[in-house]
Parts: sequence; structure tokens; C-alpha cells
Amino acid sequence: MSTQNTLTCESQLVDKLRWRYATKKFDSNKKIKSEVWNQIEEALLLTPSSFGLQPWTFVVVTNPELKSKLPQFSWNQQQPQECSHLVVFARPDKIDEAYVANYIERIAEVRGVSADSLSTYKKMMTDFVKGATEEKLAEWMSRQCYIALGNLMTVAAAVGLDACPMEGFSSPDYDRILGLTEKGLRSVVVCPLGYRAEDDKYAQAAKVRFPKEKVILHI
Amino acid sequence: MSTQNTLTCESQLVDKLRWRYATKKFDSNKKIKSEVWNQIEEALLLTPSSFGLQPWTFVVVTNPELKSKLPQFSWNQQQPQECSHLVVFARPDKIDEAYVANYIERIAEVRGVSADSLSTYKKMMTDFVKGATEEKLAEWMSRQCYIALGNLMTVAAAVGLDACPMEGFSSPDYDRILGLTEKGLRSVVVCPLGYRAEDDKYAQAAKVRFPKEKVILHI
Repeated sequence: MSTQNTLTCESQLVDKLRWRYATKKFDSNKKIKSEVWNQIEEALLLTPSSFGLQPWTFVVVTNPELKSKLPQFSWNQQQPQECSHLVVFARPDKIDEAYVANYIERIAEVRGVSADSLSTYKKMMTDFVKGATEEKLAEWMSRQCYIALGNLMTVAAAVGLDACPMEGFSSPDYDRILGLTEKGLRSVVVCPLGYRAEDDKYAQAAKVRFPKEKVILHI
Repeated sequence: MSTQNTLTCESQLVDKLRWRYATKKFDSNKKIKSEVWNQIEEALLLTPSSFGLQPWTFVVVTNPELKSKLPQFSWNQQQPQECSHLVVFARPDKIDEAYVANYIERIAEVRGVSADSLSTYKKMMTDFVKGATEEKLAEWMSRQCYIALGNLMTVAAAVGLDACPMEGFSSPDYDRILGLTEKGLRSVVVCPLGYRAEDDKYAQAAKVRFPKEKVILHI
């Protein structure tokens, strides 16, 4: 991998991070093409997580009828309806020994090793899920979902997709409307994606960040 | 922004997300050049956050003496010492009305508007920080740090930097050693960055993810 190429790619990426903004109004007529969306899904799938446990399901909502029910449970924000694709980051209701065992099976399958050879790793993870309260584990899983959110927003900007991360929604109502409860899932955070409307005035607003020297500390 | 270009860039990005892995052993002789590192800092600074409040400080540790003290408080993992640059994601001890007021001043400064014109936005954020418990706000701030972690790992991969996200460290000890406590900061998660050692056998291991059809749900 040549440093020159990657530096160039990275400069582009920083430019794209400057280009992105929390989109307030999507053009509901513009849909994301499948070849673009497939790359987004690949990137989501590759998100790193603690222990590699991937305590998440990425729920992609494109059904217009379902989407139309969401603004009233999103502080009346219209983006979940007007966007092309809505990603709901959901965590499992709980994470337990069985989940860890299933993950170990998956490692054994992908790497062509025996599950027995992974016993030390398995014990470490099992001790982790047995040693923490349900509330603590729920929060730990939610944090992992935020890694995926960060990854998604960067990759979306890289392909020129607009996005709007949203914490302002009713998780129980989303879970009910989207049928997540019966699947043992809980919505954590959501991100509508698509293309900005031409008249979204927020697209023109200067990006606000604290001064670099206050945010980054060198020691 | 041409779709063709961005698709190509994105394909590269997905390849780079496949290339990355949680680096167990860094080559301590290889240092990240400043022109590469500057891009990383720009990307960190541009991380999106809820309300745009940026409840974080990114602590970049390169001092060898400080780094040498960290493995013993990191489950004996050597990456914080052997890496080139260690990023400690720290949140403010607390977030309050004064923090919000300071942010409003910053918006007014960057956008050239009066602070008074932002009173509705200010009230919304003030209500948010006054309406939640200290514990809830601490967790909310920590989640924002995980967005930055996700962004960092993706951007690092894009420039060919190796990284290892780590939750396994003693936050109070890091805060003491790095002098964060007296600055009103609390370490949340850390990420050593640099270049993989040639003999890090984990670099060759197949990447393990659950099957796409189990992780991504279309509705």
C-alpha cells in the first residue's frame, strides 16, 4: 500500500467529512442505488467491536408505510420518512453465555479451527458477560452500536451520501412499529440516509467545531 | 461529486476495512509521519456528535516515558507502549449549562450570528443537560466518544495506519498518569495507532463476522 495513494485518498476523505452535515431535509424522490448501498452494508458488517462480539443488528428500513409512521415518534423530525434508507442500530435484548458460544462456533467455522482450541478466549468472554449487570451489558452493547454509527457516517460521506444521526426518537415505539421487540432487539440510535433536498438551508451553514487546540491535547 | 469517483473511493475504503484488524503487536520503530497524523487529527475534529456538543478531548500520547507506564494498567497489553501514537478518548467530568453557553458562543463566533438568535437551540440543550442525571449524561458523553472511535478506525484504515481499539484499561490509573483528572477529564476508551509488527500473527487470521443475512435485516 503506497503512502502516496493513501494520503491522497485520506485528503479526499477529510474533504468529504467537511462536506457532510446532519441533514435536516432529504429529497424523498432520490433513492440510493443498490450498488452504492451494498458497499454501505459491507462497511457496516466490517465494523470493529469489543472482543469481536458484534452485539448488533442493523435494521434497514425502506418500506414507505413503515417509514411514514416514524416521524411522530421522532420529535416530529421528518428525516426517517423522507430519507431513502433508514438504518436502525439495534442491540440484542441481552447477551449471555449462549451468545458467546455461538460466536465461538462462528470463529471456528471461519478460521477452520476447533472450538476447543478457543477455550481460553471463550472463558474470557463468558466471564465478561457473566460478571456484569444486565444494565452494564446493555450500555456496553449500545456503545458498540455507536462505533458502527461512527463508521457508517464516515463511509456514507466518502460515497457522497447524506446522513443524519438521530438520538431523538422513542425506542419502545420504534421497536413496536418495526417488529423488533419480538425479535429480541432494542433500538439504540438511528441514521436516515439519502440525498439532501436542494432547499435544506442547513447545508450552507458553516460547520462548527471547537478550536483544534482545545479539543486535541498532546502529551 | 461524481458518483463514479465516489464509488471507486468507497470500494477502496471497504477493501481497507477488510485490511484492518485489531493490531496485537506494533513495530515500535515505525512512527507515523506528521503529515499523515495531521489528517487523522482533522478527521477526529470533524467527528459528528449529538447537538454538535463535542463532549470530548482527544488526548494524543507520544511521550515514551508516559507510554511505558501504561501496559501495567492495560491488562499487560503492550500496544499503548509499542504504538506510535496513542489516542485516549476523554470526556469532560461533567457537562452543564456553562458548557452549553460556551458552545453557543462558539456557534455565534463561527457563523457570525448573535448568541441571542440561538436562544431556542440553547434552551433545548440546556433542558437536556439539566434534565438528565449525572450518570446518564456521563454515559451519553461516553457514547459520543465511541462515534469518534468509529470514525477514527475507519479513517486510520483509509490511510493504511494500524490501530487497536481497547476497552481493557484502568480509567482511573490512566487519568492519574496522564494528568487528566486535574484537567476535569475522564478517559473512556483508547486506541493505539501505528504500524503492525511483521511477526504479528493476528494480521494473517481470517476476519470473523457473523453472516450478513443475520446481521442486516431489511424491512
